[in-house]
Amino acid sequence: MLPQDALEAARDELLEYGNTGMSVMEMSHRSKAYEEIISEARELFYEIMNIPRSYKILFLQGGASLQFAMVPMNLLKTGADYVLTGQFSHKAYDEALLFGKSVNIAGSTKAENYTRVPRQDELKLDPKADYLHICHNNTIFGTRYNYVPETAAPVVADMSSCILSEPVDVSRYGLIYAGAQKNIAPAGLTVVIIREDIISPPMSGTPTMLNYTVMDKNDSMYNTPPTYPIYMCMLVLRRLKSLGGLSVMAEINNAKAKVLYDYIDESALFTNPVNKPDRSIMNAVFKTPSEELDALFVKEAEKAGFVNLKGHRSVGGMRASIYNAMPSEGVTALVKFMKRFEVEHR
Amino acid sequence: MLPQDALEAARDELLEYGNTGMSVMEMSHRSKAYEEIISEARELFYEIMNIPRSYKILFLQGGASLQFAMVPMNLLKTGADYVLTGQFSHKAYDEALLFGKSVNIAGSTKAENYTRVPRQDELKLDPKADYLHICHNNTIFGTRYNYVPETAAPVVADMSSCILSEPVDVSRYGLIYAGAQKNIAPAGLTVVIIREDIISPPMSGTPTMLNYTVMDKNDSMYNTPPTYPIYMCMLVLRRLKSLGGLSVMAEINNAKAKVLYDYIDESALFTNPVNKPDRSIMNAVFKTPSEELDALFVKEAEKAGFVNLKGHRSVGGMRASIYNAMPSEGVTALVKFMKRFEVEHR
Repeated sequence: MLPQDALEAARDELLEYGNTGMSVMEMSHRSKAYEEIISEARELFYEIMNIPRSYKILFLQGGASLQFAMVPMNLLKTGADYVLTGQFSHKAYDEALLFGKSVNIAGSTKAENYTRVPRQDELKLDPKADYLHICHNNTIFGTRYNYVPETAAPVVADMSSCILSEPVDVSRYGLIYAGAQKNIAPAGLTVVIIREDIISPPMSGTPTMLNYTVMDKNDSMYNTPPTYPIYMCMLVLRRLKSLGGLSVMAEINNAKAKVLYDYIDESALFTNPVNKPDRSIMNAVFKTPSEELDALFVKEAEKAGFVNLKGHRSVGGMRASIYNAMPSEGVTALVKFMKRFEVEHR
Repeated sequence: MLPQDALEAARDELLEYGNTGMSVMEMSHRSKAYEEIISEARELFYEIMNIPRSYKILFLQGGASLQFAMVPMNLLKTGADYVLTGQFSHKAYDEALLFGKSVNIAGSTKAENYTRVPRQDELKLDPKADYLHICHNNTIFGTRYNYVPETAAPVVADMSSCILSEPVDVSRYGLIYAGAQKNIAPAGLTVVIIREDIISPPMSGTPTMLNYTVMDKNDSMYNTPPTYPIYMCMLVLRRLKSLGGLSVMAEINNAKAKVLYDYIDESALFTNPVNKPDRSIMNAVFKTPSEELDALFVKEAEKAGFVNLKGHRSVGGMRASIYNAMPSEGVTALVKFMKRFEVEHR
């Protein structure tokens, strides 16, 4: 979902942006009008996320999946620590293995079916690691880190499914990356926030397009960037700012998640398997006692207008994604529907 | 530029696509509605470009610049031939050098400042080459191939600035790629048309996202594709089809280019340096006898509403890009403006 007012602004400006005589989709990325758009998007990120100026913001392509490769190709010199907390962290780990260096599993909750993230005292860190990689919010399993791991190496965090959902102390990370399509903009844009001092020449054989140094030196304009998603990003960030920024967003998101989790916890039909302090405020997973009832729930929910509630095939059950653009009313309506379903099927 | 009616359709559907209740920008790429969009875009490509079914169409990210790396990472086993006809073919060649294999310059017109492309009889082909790489239309220098090189190896062609401008015998190529932002859709989408039998495992250390085999096996859905540019691509292809396809497009484009070149050839002020049979029908370069007058022309043209006419800094002068979406009236108006400028400044 995207905020309705951002979509309306995009519609109103679709044929002509300002007085430029053209659509944003038609602008040269080198034009003055477009330079203003990408600059505003960048500055809004600095402001809204309170990003120190010692960090660079890159607008790239390829999604988190391409960052799974770019991170090791650029940062992995000797070794790296990876914490496994679900499918995407595992994909990131598998990708790092492609490059013939030492990659250490610093922690994993696979044995517990990823129903929590490892605690700090469980991490087995490689003292020679160039970085520690975590997936901050685990979409499929409905968990998230409620702490930033302490380690000598820079922390690299995949925040694809939680960026902009609450304040983050960026200074505690070396690199934050996020595919845009959950909370920022339509698919096709990847945002990378990287501490300037860890940008260094990548391993040999790294494609130019995958080189942070090149992307940074060219202010994300080495080639044509994904111009329209960056424009949508600007519109979404403008709205976030006018709403009051990330502390207000966190209040709203925590309240939305609380409504859902409170009901699940009191329900006699639905359960959530996640360790409470690790519960995601973006993705709430839940199930009934039987797969048949889960399937019926998904089917009836869809009829009632609640789409995309089916859990990932690896975990089954249901998942409600309550990203920034999901209004409180959407969560309240879902809980109301769940209550009715519970009465009918308990 | 994009066709006005495609932009209008996008505007009208921006808040809600069909009866889906959501914007295309908000759709899951796994949803039925979105599957229909990407399938229609793919099928329209097959139909409009008359692509044999032995070719696969991939919707990727990263622009031509990322293909400069993906092509050698996937196809370069022993050696490759590259023909140098301008800046982008040179970038493709430089990128291929990153991977430690034999890369042969099969031809170059650098000594003639790229004012033509090499003839077939000038090419010095490596008999062991895995492919021959050409840049079909050279934006900056205003040239294009008017023939397909004959070689035992598959021909790989960068068609970023000419795809969909005229009919192409796809069967004479192994791989055609194009960044979308000239003739297809807004930036952020790269189309790859690849003969199925040359899709093979890439060199070791190739990121998953840069692996044609993976992209093909997953029907361009290994991760979230650039959903909105693909939708815009569908709208543009629908319009192309309704106009009568690529033979009609070629007629229109040739007529537009003729108006411009005919005037330049009769002008006493403006000249075009390109070997006539190699003149691009997408990008016409021209200059006056002095840099000062060139600068004045660009300035006055901009005041009169003709933007982006400045030539690339490496060649100077002017360049008129007359892509598919540029109407004939735009070219006629430009020529009228040039004539007036000539009268005033000859």
